[in-house]
Amino acid sequence: MYKLILAVTALPLIMAAAPLPAPAPVIPPPALIAALRDDALANDHIAWDITEGLTTEVGQRLAGTEAEARARDWAVRRLTAMGFANVHVEPFTMPVWVRGAETAEIVAPFPQKLVLTALGNSGATPAEGLTGEIVAFDSVEALIAAPDAMVRGRIVFIDHRMMPTQDGSGYGQFGAPRRQGPTIASKKGAIAIVVRSIGTDHHRNPHTGVQSFADGARPIPAAALSVPDAEQLARILARGRPVTIHLTLTPHFVAPGQSGNVVADLVGGDPSLPMLLIGGHLDSWDLGTGAIDDASGVAIATAAAKRIMDAGRPLRTIRVVWFGAEEPGTFGAAAFAKAHGGDRFAAMAESDFGADRIWKIDTRLGEGRKAVEDALFAAVAPLGVLKGVTNKAGGSDLDELVEAGQPVIALRQDGTRYFDWHHTPDDTIDKIDKGQLRQNVATWTAMLAVLSGGIAEPKPSRWR
Amino acid sequence: MYKLILAVTALPLIMAAAPLPAPAPVIPPPALIAALRDDALANDHIAWDITEGLTTEVGQRLAGTEAEARARDWAVRRLTAMGFANVHVEPFTMPVWVRGAETAEIVAPFPQKLVLTALGNSGATPAEGLTGEIVAFDSVEALIAAPDAMVRGRIVFIDHRMMPTQDGSGYGQFGAPRRQGPTIASKKGAIAIVVRSIGTDHHRNPHTGVQSFADGARPIPAAALSVPDAEQLARILARGRPVTIHLTLTPHFVAPGQSGNVVADLVGGDPSLPMLLIGGHLDSWDLGTGAIDDASGVAIATAAAKRIMDAGRPLRTIRVVWFGAEEPGTFGAAAFAKAHGGDRFAAMAESDFGADRIWKIDTRLGEGRKAVEDALFAAVAPLGVLKGVTNKAGGSDLDELVEAGQPVIALRQDGTRYFDWHHTPDDTIDKIDKGQLRQNVATWTAMLAVLSGGIAEPKPSRWR
Repeated sequence: MYKLILAVTALPLIMAAAPLPAPAPVIPPPALIAALRDDALANDHIAWDITEGLTTEVGQRLAGTEAEARARDWAVRRLTAMGFANVHVEPFTMPVWVRGAETAEIVAPFPQKLVLTALGNSGATPAEGLTGEIVAFDSVEALIAAPDAMVRGRIVFIDHRMMPTQDGSGYGQFGAPRRQGPTIASKKGAIAIVVRSIGTDHHRNPHTGVQSFADGARPIPAAALSVPDAEQLARILARGRPVTIHLTLTPHFVAPGQSGNVVADLVGGDPSLPMLLIGGHLDSWDLGTGAIDDASGVAIATAAAKRIMDAGRPLRTIRVVWFGAEEPGTFGAAAFAKAHGGDRFAAMAESDFGADRIWKIDTRLGEGRKAVEDALFAAVAPLGVLKGVTNKAGGSDLDELVEAGQPVIALRQDGTRYFDWHHTPDDTIDKIDKGQLRQNVATWTAMLAVLSGGIAEPKPSRWR
Repeated sequence: MYKLILAVTALPLIMAAAPLPAPAPVIPPPALIAALRDDALANDHIAWDITEGLTTEVGQRLAGTEAEARARDWAVRRLTAMGFANVHVEPFTMPVWVRGAETAEIVAPFPQKLVLTALGNSGATPAEGLTGEIVAFDSVEALIAAPDAMVRGRIVFIDHRMMPTQDGSGYGQFGAPRRQGPTIASKKGAIAIVVRSIGTDHHRNPHTGVQSFADGARPIPAAALSVPDAEQLARILARGRPVTIHLTLTPHFVAPGQSGNVVADLVGGDPSLPMLLIGGHLDSWDLGTGAIDDASGVAIATAAAKRIMDAGRPLRTIRVVWFGAEEPGTFGAAAFAKAHGGDRFAAMAESDFGADRIWKIDTRLGEGRKAVEDALFAAVAPLGVLKGVTNKAGGSDLDELVEAGQPVIALRQDGTRYFDWHHTPDDTIDKIDKGQLRQNVATWTAMLAVLSGGIAEPKPSRWR
């Protein structure tokens, strides 16, 4: 009893005299996590403000261009103003492909315009365009199986219909015409290729996206038709007469450009501990304003970190990265992995699948972390978030680090609507539902609270 | 009794020997009307085939252009092949305005592109465009109230939000910025005007539409921003800094062109009776393929007439008109009224509000026709169609004839979705629901059966 009284009464003196040894990481009390989560769900406006600011004051942010540079300046200003430490840009250079003219018309049998857009790294037609006969396939596999003579000198059309899925799992399979089609068509001697947009909408807004010509494949003009235009072309082909189109696409590579990752820290109570790495990507395609891809992603991750900041100092440092140049080929992720691949992270997570609600969390945190997983799943269950698998997770800007064995958490968003707007002019902020956006922030806030190692210096005015 | 037997037994002899005096118009038996209606509801494919054919094999059909001429050729071929009589074009000439380049960018404070499209009869900028500061208003009334000095030398922006209504009643009020805005802005000295699209969607597809500069108003460049772009401009303006945009619009009038009304008859058993006049318009705006505006309209009216034709010969002639040049200012309607305004019609009806289901019928048939109205409302009630008013009805291609006192029936379609696509690139056939399209044909078929004066020569193989 004497010792206890001594210890209690002496504590303030000891704290004033010299810092205590840093506490060991703990999981904060469920009531604190719940309070942080529910406040985010009810009140968060940070994620909306970031999304609205970035998409309004910068707009599109094509990687490697001056627009992306303006976005980095915006990000540094905003992250600094929010109170993050160590805000800086980690620059890198990259090839820069930019869009040119893009028009198409059916010449015969029924003259009319078609709406399309060039795919990333597309080759160009002559300035006056080119004219060719369509040869149509319903899949990449059908194109592969076709004799070269059927394709040579023609314009390939791949008409492969994508349907929505909640988990976005169709993007791999249905994306094949965009990713592999141009190389295969080129190797078979096609003069150009048009694919049905990799999208689930019915609007005259085509879906761009990256593709890369494999070694030995001459870059040919490669474009995506909007879904209604692809269906129109299919109807015309169904009449059984030869279909000729005139195509003008003049994209080109400019000089290599500068991009960069914007990094900001919420410095933890014990910076020697492995940190939490979170983020999304700052760049966007050039057609929309990159609201769901991926202003909302950097906004969700950053808003959650800011809410932890406002609640008190976490034990672990939370590092926020707004990656550059994800769209043309995860150049920012590669630069980050090269610079920081030797670091150890307690967990990594990215947000890059829109702004609709999180419905499931997958983890791959490694052995001996079941208590953290259990606390995480319990904390988010009231938000309607399911427990997913605990041995598999990832994300395009994290894949290289995940492959290197870093622990990762994937907060899975509902993708049912995502491919209605993904990579189109329609990726604008009006597509974001504020309630679902707040549910994202609430889920991320709970996740950060669970993983933070403890809120070392809570701010009593807010949390007591 | 003797007389009755004589009459019945003598009838075939009389018919064979010489034509009877034409019977007086009657309302066919409810069972016959119901059978015609329900067969259309279950089985009609004629309306889809016409809509699909016209939008696929011709596509857009801007009034006065060679595309509309191809559409007339298509219409004559199709109507003739369907068995209509007296198929012909009634030509007229008209001024022809065509779209040019149309681009816009915010110059300051946040450089980015905006998506817009010229309004009908818009003036042009210089080829290199013009740059000006935005002055914004939330309504036409606010623009009218503004001092000229506030407007002079600037680019007017009217940001007037349209909300969907089932009956489309918002189009008049919310359409004012498009219809009156350009003239008012011009008279106040504006160098151009951009309006929020008169539409209810959130896609990057602006809504064009006609406007006409009043006498004394210099034609200035006039365009509609897509709804997301208008909202983006509003967000940027809300920052409180001057907003400058660069605008390039190069539409122009070409030489006066030829348009025409395509007329086809289902000749009735008594051509001396006042006929039924039905139709829609063949032309479309140039951005989409004019599926809901108005391929589906001509298709619905024509399919219903064809179904009557296949059932037997009606007593009244049914005249089908595919009007030309409705969009730029009902030139076809004016030519038709001039040529046929002296005719008397038993009833007129047009279909020009998409392809969603008919939910109400209004009539203005005149005195002494209550039995016809009652039969009509009874016949369509099983289709979910409400009885509307019986003293008011109309339609843009019929307005001049209605004003002259001709009897009219308005089959009101559900317009909740109509202004999502109206006058945009998104007016394509994928927006049409086949079930609702068949409900339209069923309603029209029932209406024609009731008004036909009786099916004078039913085809027993089909209707017994």
